[in-house]
Amino acid sequence: MDPLSLLRSLAVPNTTKILLLVLDGLGGLPLEEGGPTELEAAHTPNLDALAARGICGLSTPIAPGITPGSGPAHLALFGYDPLAYEIGRGVLEALGIGLELQPEDVAARGNFCTLDPQTGVILDRRAGRIPTEVCARLVEKLRAIRLPGVEVLVEPVQDYRFVLVLRGPGLADGLTETDPQRTGVPPLPVQPTRPEAAHTADLLNRWLRAAFTLLADEHPANGCTLRGMAKNPGLPPMPEVYGMRCAAIATYPMYRGLARLAGMEVLPTGSTVEDQVQTLRQHWEGYDFFFFHVKKTDSAGEDGDFARKVQVIEEVDRALPAILELHPDVVVVTGDHATPARWKAHSWHELPVLLWSHNVCPDGVTRFGERACMSGGLGHIRHLDILPLALACAGRLTKLGA
Amino acid sequence: MDPLSLLRSLAVPNTTKILLLVLDGLGGLPLEEGGPTELEAAHTPNLDALAARGICGLSTPIAPGITPGSGPAHLALFGYDPLAYEIGRGVLEALGIGLELQPEDVAARGNFCTLDPQTGVILDRRAGRIPTEVCARLVEKLRAIRLPGVEVLVEPVQDYRFVLVLRGPGLADGLTETDPQRTGVPPLPVQPTRPEAAHTADLLNRWLRAAFTLLADEHPANGCTLRGMAKNPGLPPMPEVYGMRCAAIATYPMYRGLARLAGMEVLPTGSTVEDQVQTLRQHWEGYDFFFFHVKKTDSAGEDGDFARKVQVIEEVDRALPAILELHPDVVVVTGDHATPARWKAHSWHELPVLLWSHNVCPDGVTRFGERACMSGGLGHIRHLDILPLALACAGRLTKLGA
Repeated sequence: MDPLSLLRSLAVPNTTKILLLVLDGLGGLPLEEGGPTELEAAHTPNLDALAARGICGLSTPIAPGITPGSGPAHLALFGYDPLAYEIGRGVLEALGIGLELQPEDVAARGNFCTLDPQTGVILDRRAGRIPTEVCARLVEKLRAIRLPGVEVLVEPVQDYRFVLVLRGPGLADGLTETDPQRTGVPPLPVQPTRPEAAHTADLLNRWLRAAFTLLADEHPANGCTLRGMAKNPGLPPMPEVYGMRCAAIATYPMYRGLARLAGMEVLPTGSTVEDQVQTLRQHWEGYDFFFFHVKKTDSAGEDGDFARKVQVIEEVDRALPAILELHPDVVVVTGDHATPARWKAHSWHELPVLLWSHNVCPDGVTRFGERACMSGGLGHIRHLDILPLALACAGRLTKLGA
Repeated sequence: MDPLSLLRSLAVPNTTKILLLVLDGLGGLPLEEGGPTELEAAHTPNLDALAARGICGLSTPIAPGITPGSGPAHLALFGYDPLAYEIGRGVLEALGIGLELQPEDVAARGNFCTLDPQTGVILDRRAGRIPTEVCARLVEKLRAIRLPGVEVLVEPVQDYRFVLVLRGPGLADGLTETDPQRTGVPPLPVQPTRPEAAHTADLLNRWLRAAFTLLADEHPANGCTLRGMAKNPGLPPMPEVYGMRCAAIATYPMYRGLARLAGMEVLPTGSTVEDQVQTLRQHWEGYDFFFFHVKKTDSAGEDGDFARKVQVIEEVDRALPAILELHPDVVVVTGDHATPARWKAHSWHELPVLLWSHNVCPDGVTRFGERACMSGGLGHIRHLDILPLALACAGRLTKLGA
């Protein structure tokens, strides 16, 4: 039995409340040998006190050595095997700009490119990285393209990137990309990798022909390519699987979109952690499970800004008492993945996880940090293990067998 | 997605160098209650210093309670799921005597046996354990046997054991063994377990009939049986999967053969650890991944010689500085499995693993030994996890998803 089916079969109702507090890119590394990580350097009296009363460990987002993107890492935190449920690039890109995808939509990531007007070969795969304003004007032009039987949405993203969504009946994924990944050759046609996708491939090729005509006089963006054509992965919705009312409090479109994919209601909220706490307070009675997402730890890590990442962690620590005043039954504090400031990028490292509830056996860890959590009572787990543990602590899983 | 496909899809080029230092049979047990293991008894200042700067843990070769042979244990270290890729006994036996197998070869392990001249039933499955010299003389006799369309290689191994290899087009595995595993019954015929193997079964049965004729006047080895007929398992070559130039520095034929199966280049080297370090130095620029295999820890363990195993470990420790002077980016030190001297045999125990690179979060372990590694930051991993971690530390794996 796959893990999700097992949990579904054991899920029972309860009135308990679970808070999943995700500090994006929480995990870190020492800047220099012998130094502290970002989390270790931060002054976190409230997280430390919670760690002392809870149980800690280190968690691997996907598998040892695998650096996850935000999509797979969050899927694992939400209890979905990220290797079984893939979120295509087109879908992620659409989520990232706040597009709400419907189940039958096919979304593609588009790149404007420069074609040789004579031969049609690609000269620049990113059209000289045109500014977003130019991208928006070109997208406006492309919105004129109509296709039979489906609605067509085109939205600018950033620089040379845009999103194309086909909406309507009979669409299928299983489509090859048109970017040949090199210059000197023409864009490829969309081809179906399975018979059901033939019609969608045909529609996309029609759209591309029309786009090339509309863009012919533009410079440098006189062409475009499509990548990562994908449908909504069709995750079994969390409320249905677990019988919980699930809400997301996240400020960035990508994470709001991921939460929506998992069936959560995405609450309107302000941009600061304080705003998010305020939203949590307002909606506390209305939901059983809250995904509370803090983005700025990751942004600081990506920027290589160790000190700012420390500050964001401390900001969350200061917000913790107000959260705990709501009396959640289970609190999980972790990250989706590590984003060490030293790396300025996501990494594969295990990251700290803290599980607090009245139903855990405290482990003697009194500090929430990478090294302290190494000897924590949770040991070394996978992100996929976290939600089942939280559900169990919340009295939301019954016994397997007799 | 299987782990190897996942890694293949994420592998990216880099100029970093990885050293996998395998002390065969490294893991041990205390000789008596309260005593140290072999590794704990050894004076290993250099390994300890590396442990202090790296991250340590314990690794299970295959699965809890499973004692591996050298084949499966090394496969796991090389990143191949040893339960998915089986190395047949015939292939291992051929590798063990240094036979280079070609992709289409079918290799079998042969046992000389004693047959009742009247009834043809087996009287002794090992022909009174004839000495190797007799085995060699009988093998010489068997080399006279020709088969249509294929080349036939016969090589003595030790005592009553030999290797038979058929080489040529159209050969297939999927063949039953002829050793009935008991006396009082005649050897079984080779039977195909799938249609493609019918021709190969026919060839082997012809060879066996001819062998029985040639051996009829011999005593006690007037017959033979064939076991473990197998082809090269066809491992996806490491250089192709990971985009790394891979080399093996190993002194024993079995390990050189295993490395060759994994697609490594097997470097000529001398018999001492010092010779092997010299080989490493000579070829340092030519490869990205080095499998450095030390056999004598295992031999000492198999002999039940605790003190000698300690000495071999100390010899490797003394060689470590010369290895580190080459500035590898990632160093892994571990064993393929445990061979406790107290056991005089392989065992299933977890064994220490040390991962050093600039990209790990050091864990405070300052001693490379079984007990110290129990609280290491790597926790309890599987051998299959080791290569992905090394690749990640070497910047040779890109992000999964976006």
